[in-house]
Amino acid sequence: MIQKKLEVCLSPALLPLFNIEDSIVVVIDIFRATSSICYGIDNGAEAIIPVAKVEECAAYREMGLDYLLAAERDGAVVDGFDFGNSPFSYTKEKVAGKTIVLTTTNGTHALHMSIKAKQIVIGSFLNLTSLCNWLKTQNENILLVCAGWKNNFNIEDTVFAGAVADQLQELDYKWDDATIAANDMYSLAKPDLGAYLSKTSHGERMKQLGILDDIAFCLHVDITTAIPVLKGDKLVKLV
Amino acid sequence: MIQKKLEVCLSPALLPLFNIEDSIVVVIDIFRATSSICYGIDNGAEAIIPVAKVEECAAYREMGLDYLLAAERDGAVVDGFDFGNSPFSYTKEKVAGKTIVLTTTNGTHALHMSIKAKQIVIGSFLNLTSLCNWLKTQNENILLVCAGWKNNFNIEDTVFAGAVADQLQELDYKWDDATIAANDMYSLAKPDLGAYLSKTSHGERMKQLGILDDIAFCLHVDITTAIPVLKGDKLVKLV
Repeated sequence: MIQKKLEVCLSPALLPLFNIEDSIVVVIDIFRATSSICYGIDNGAEAIIPVAKVEECAAYREMGLDYLLAAERDGAVVDGFDFGNSPFSYTKEKVAGKTIVLTTTNGTHALHMSIKAKQIVIGSFLNLTSLCNWLKTQNENILLVCAGWKNNFNIEDTVFAGAVADQLQELDYKWDDATIAANDMYSLAKPDLGAYLSKTSHGERMKQLGILDDIAFCLHVDITTAIPVLKGDKLVKLV
Repeated sequence: MIQKKLEVCLSPALLPLFNIEDSIVVVIDIFRATSSICYGIDNGAEAIIPVAKVEECAAYREMGLDYLLAAERDGAVVDGFDFGNSPFSYTKEKVAGKTIVLTTTNGTHALHMSIKAKQIVIGSFLNLTSLCNWLKTQNENILLVCAGWKNNFNIEDTVFAGAVADQLQELDYKWDDATIAANDMYSLAKPDLGAYLSKTSHGERMKQLGILDDIAFCLHVDITTAIPVLKGDKLVKLV
């Protein structure tokens, strides 16, 4: 029997190096897209449609559908949209039963680049253990895709990949170097995720945008159980 | 005054994301190309010409020049060549005063991709402190380029980048996320480099090739002082 693989792709730009078709892909964009998606789906959103640009998001309005539109620029909700990318917008009151169109550059890019995967699911600290428990039952190669920032490596997505690897140790999968490195970084970060991630470039950018509460929220481990999965162009709750 | 940058490029595939022209590039291919190059130049080799393929290396023979040709496949010297990629081939007795054509896929790829840099120098554990002392005097942006393996991230090159960052802390340069991560990995690896790197994919491959002595040699810190620098298509000793 061939040993299954657990791999980490540190940037969407490196995806061509992997056998995406033979793997379940977990897309990771901790600050804040995949955290907000996990929270929204857990809170009963019917579906979340990730798009790359504000204009694509706006195009959904023309269709006359009862969708919520989420678009943000420089940390503020864009005029004419329902809300931004803060996970606090994805509460039960706001999203239950709704379909949301979410503008997220890096997350959407990572999703599109992974489209040939056997299955694409969404990971964040919010649904960490639930996601890992499901992955353990799949008996498939697993590829953890860090969305990064404009194709640049980032620490928060990598540390989360390491957290997943940590829970999947019992699988006895073959780890690539990036998985080993991510797991080591997680071992350093685990005692105080917030402190460890505060030194990252994205953490600094978000401090400047005044969304520190969002960051803190995105680091809450296991407050949700839903696993968002891509069906067509929509993220829905995995049945 | 704009703060200078210290950045780590984790794979040559990510080089398009960096402003190479504004930086001194350090090319890193620990197992074994840049280690052998540092050792050879320190031992008096007049020049080392890195090429990507055995055929390119062989082409130098046709020129009728008194060059040493180094080419290896699967850990064995290719028939008709003078030696392989083991640093043990780059002793004073063998290389002093000679020009060597060295076949190295990943190292050559990283060099070619970095060609627009202000200057390209070669780093390895062998010349670590000498390299860092020189970098401290340059007042330029610094980009540490990990050659990786076929564009894949690898741990040994990243850990070395972290070792460089560690020595450059006093510069007060702005670090990107990859530099922070590399430095953290180095902090884990430092107490026992050999043990830490033995778990990497490349370390495993080299064990299978029976070149464990080479690996151990490549982890000797500061046994040389020469800094190889690229002039045209040749690596020579920095004056």
